[in-house]
Amino acid sequence: MEDIIKKAILAKKAGIVLSRLDTVQKNKCLSHMIDALIEDTEYILNENQKDMAAGKLKGMSEALLDRLLLNKKRLEGIIEGLKQLIALKDPVGEVLYMNKMPNGLLIGQTRVPLGVIGIIYEARPNVTVDAASLCIKSGNAVILRGGSEAVNSNIALVKSLRKALVSAGLPEDSISIIEDTSRETAARFMKLNEYIDVLIPRGGAGLIKSAIENSTIPVIQTGIGNCHVYVDSYGDLNMAERIILNAKISRPGVCNAEEKLLVHKDVADEFIPRIVKSLTESGVEVRGCETTLKLSGDIKPAEDIDWYTEYLDYIIAVKVVDSIDEAIEHINKYGTKHSEAIVTDNYSNSRKFMAEVDAAAVYINASTRFTDGNEFGLGAEIGISTQKLHARGPMGLKELTSTKYIIYGDGQIR
Amino acid sequence: MEDIIKKAILAKKAGIVLSRLDTVQKNKCLSHMIDALIEDTEYILNENQKDMAAGKLKGMSEALLDRLLLNKKRLEGIIEGLKQLIALKDPVGEVLYMNKMPNGLLIGQTRVPLGVIGIIYEARPNVTVDAASLCIKSGNAVILRGGSEAVNSNIALVKSLRKALVSAGLPEDSISIIEDTSRETAARFMKLNEYIDVLIPRGGAGLIKSAIENSTIPVIQTGIGNCHVYVDSYGDLNMAERIILNAKISRPGVCNAEEKLLVHKDVADEFIPRIVKSLTESGVEVRGCETTLKLSGDIKPAEDIDWYTEYLDYIIAVKVVDSIDEAIEHINKYGTKHSEAIVTDNYSNSRKFMAEVDAAAVYINASTRFTDGNEFGLGAEIGISTQKLHARGPMGLKELTSTKYIIYGDGQIR
Repeated sequence: MEDIIKKAILAKKAGIVLSRLDTVQKNKCLSHMIDALIEDTEYILNENQKDMAAGKLKGMSEALLDRLLLNKKRLEGIIEGLKQLIALKDPVGEVLYMNKMPNGLLIGQTRVPLGVIGIIYEARPNVTVDAASLCIKSGNAVILRGGSEAVNSNIALVKSLRKALVSAGLPEDSISIIEDTSRETAARFMKLNEYIDVLIPRGGAGLIKSAIENSTIPVIQTGIGNCHVYVDSYGDLNMAERIILNAKISRPGVCNAEEKLLVHKDVADEFIPRIVKSLTESGVEVRGCETTLKLSGDIKPAEDIDWYTEYLDYIIAVKVVDSIDEAIEHINKYGTKHSEAIVTDNYSNSRKFMAEVDAAAVYINASTRFTDGNEFGLGAEIGISTQKLHARGPMGLKELTSTKYIIYGDGQIR
Repeated sequence: MEDIIKKAILAKKAGIVLSRLDTVQKNKCLSHMIDALIEDTEYILNENQKDMAAGKLKGMSEALLDRLLLNKKRLEGIIEGLKQLIALKDPVGEVLYMNKMPNGLLIGQTRVPLGVIGIIYEARPNVTVDAASLCIKSGNAVILRGGSEAVNSNIALVKSLRKALVSAGLPEDSISIIEDTSRETAARFMKLNEYIDVLIPRGGAGLIKSAIENSTIPVIQTGIGNCHVYVDSYGDLNMAERIILNAKISRPGVCNAEEKLLVHKDVADEFIPRIVKSLTESGVEVRGCETTLKLSGDIKPAEDIDWYTEYLDYIIAVKVVDSIDEAIEHINKYGTKHSEAIVTDNYSNSRKFMAEVDAAAVYINASTRFTDGNEFGLGAEIGISTQKLHARGPMGLKELTSTKYIIYGDGQIR
């Protein structure tokens, strides 16, 4: 059995070294990673081919095989990400504030790394480099546990990254990977709260649920997005159509894609037939509530389960609502608190929607597809938190840090 | 069996109402709480007497009985706390930043309440009012689960607070209490992650450990403080003595009290006999490492378990170290990441200690006893976090909030 406790102990030790590095040293390490990935390209692509062959043998879908594939161009994309990360501001050491208290104490708060970050993820091997490099730049050690489909690719990538750590003079255990991809080992991994400071599961709803229920390490929930666009009675219908088509079709497999459309009854007669037609013509399967069915005929009815479902596919469910209050209530009940949008030109309704919808990102007159670290100006992201503790929305370098109170005295006692 | 799921559902509904209140409404509610507590004083003190009688019968120690006791003066103290809370700034609705992006989107981040907060605590009934009122002011519903010793006092206090909620026009389920103080019910409570957004356990190490291991609700660890003072070879020994006596003796039963003393070998000959004498004369039992025993004779030897122990009593363990590095390593190994202090007049050593000690609060030349919401200028606190996620150190109103991204567009698509 793989000794994951030993890996965790070594990661914790490495984390202490990383927490004391300055930005120049961390950026040097990221440069070495670029060199190592270029040097090891052939080896990495060969290992990826093993995963691809196994995937084909297992009958993986074309879409999943495409997510699994690494080639020269994709590796160049990964390297481009590392270059951008080098340019990002290091959050560690920033002093958030410092006050002089009446007794003369100087009390401030500074940013420090979290320590050791555990990441459990599925399919895409590019996450391996993205996540590991974000952890290093924020001064954290990382333990990765990828999916079985990508295990050869992930091991090869981590081998290359660890070589870069050593050549940059940093402990190689700053990045480690759990090679055994069994559920039992994942379950043991989730109990290592003595060594790991935070666990970030990235993947489907089943993985997230398992982490919440089994982990003794604090978990940050990510990425389930049952996102809505609500077209208000005061909405500009041309704008609504543009936003809906973009939010649904531009990339249906990602978490900030639109999954549900709510339309106010006062504009339903005009808008429903038109948007159902546009969506259908764009290859989207539309499922409708009773009123939607009446207005647009030949589509599937939506079942109750539809309102809860994140399709991640060319499918949308449409519901006509009587009021903005019903829309907000529906979103807060069925949504996953990811990204929610209203299309309206009414001031009060925009204020109401913004205040009362409970989600990581609430939009007025814009596509939900903007919920993304780069679009929000944070740079690369390690995931999108849909919980309320610690971080909410896209998580960048800052969200991989904690704080420490720093107090300068001259002998003060209480 | 008590229907705690029903309580949780009602709390969640109440939380939605609370999240939409403005500060004036919340402050009005806090005023009504003051009125209710004054009106119900006799009833509350009578119920507390039942707990006191039961405690005496069970043979509770004088110290614990004193913590349990409510009287007119203590109730006035609780009311004074409510008055101060009214004066504190409401964190909800604050816009942390807002940027105009190149595509014209305005993207900002605002503070929102967490939702429903669960608090599991022991002994002291004043926590009931402190915690509940902090939750209300920050727009959160709260479910309290106090200890069996204070159950009558806690039920009486919550009854009075719920009366105030109703008279202020707010849902009475904004504050609720779990009356069954069994472990089984506590265990069921910890699994209600569908309704409760964060669980704050306040109490001994056993309670905290149980919450970490069993809760599916995100937990904020609080309050275990195995705090150290390290006297550097460059420390002013008079200042060191003042700080140590203050940190150890001013209130030994609290989490920011000093539990361990580390002394650099170069000043041990002079300082150890002197500080052991002062501590012993102040009624503190001193346990020493081998060198300490040699230098000060008639004291108990410290066992390995001592270095891990939070005594919360008139006991201290003293160790002589060879270097500042040994001191930092010892603190990071045995400490609980609460509050740690160095006494030094050396610039490099002060920088090193501040950078390398991993704790919520790190002090140079000041007593660890300052780690407290009021002393840090945050106002009242709901606990002191010793974990790194979400909040670290004293948690005030701000730490009872989350954030929400707010995005204003004009039809932008990606």
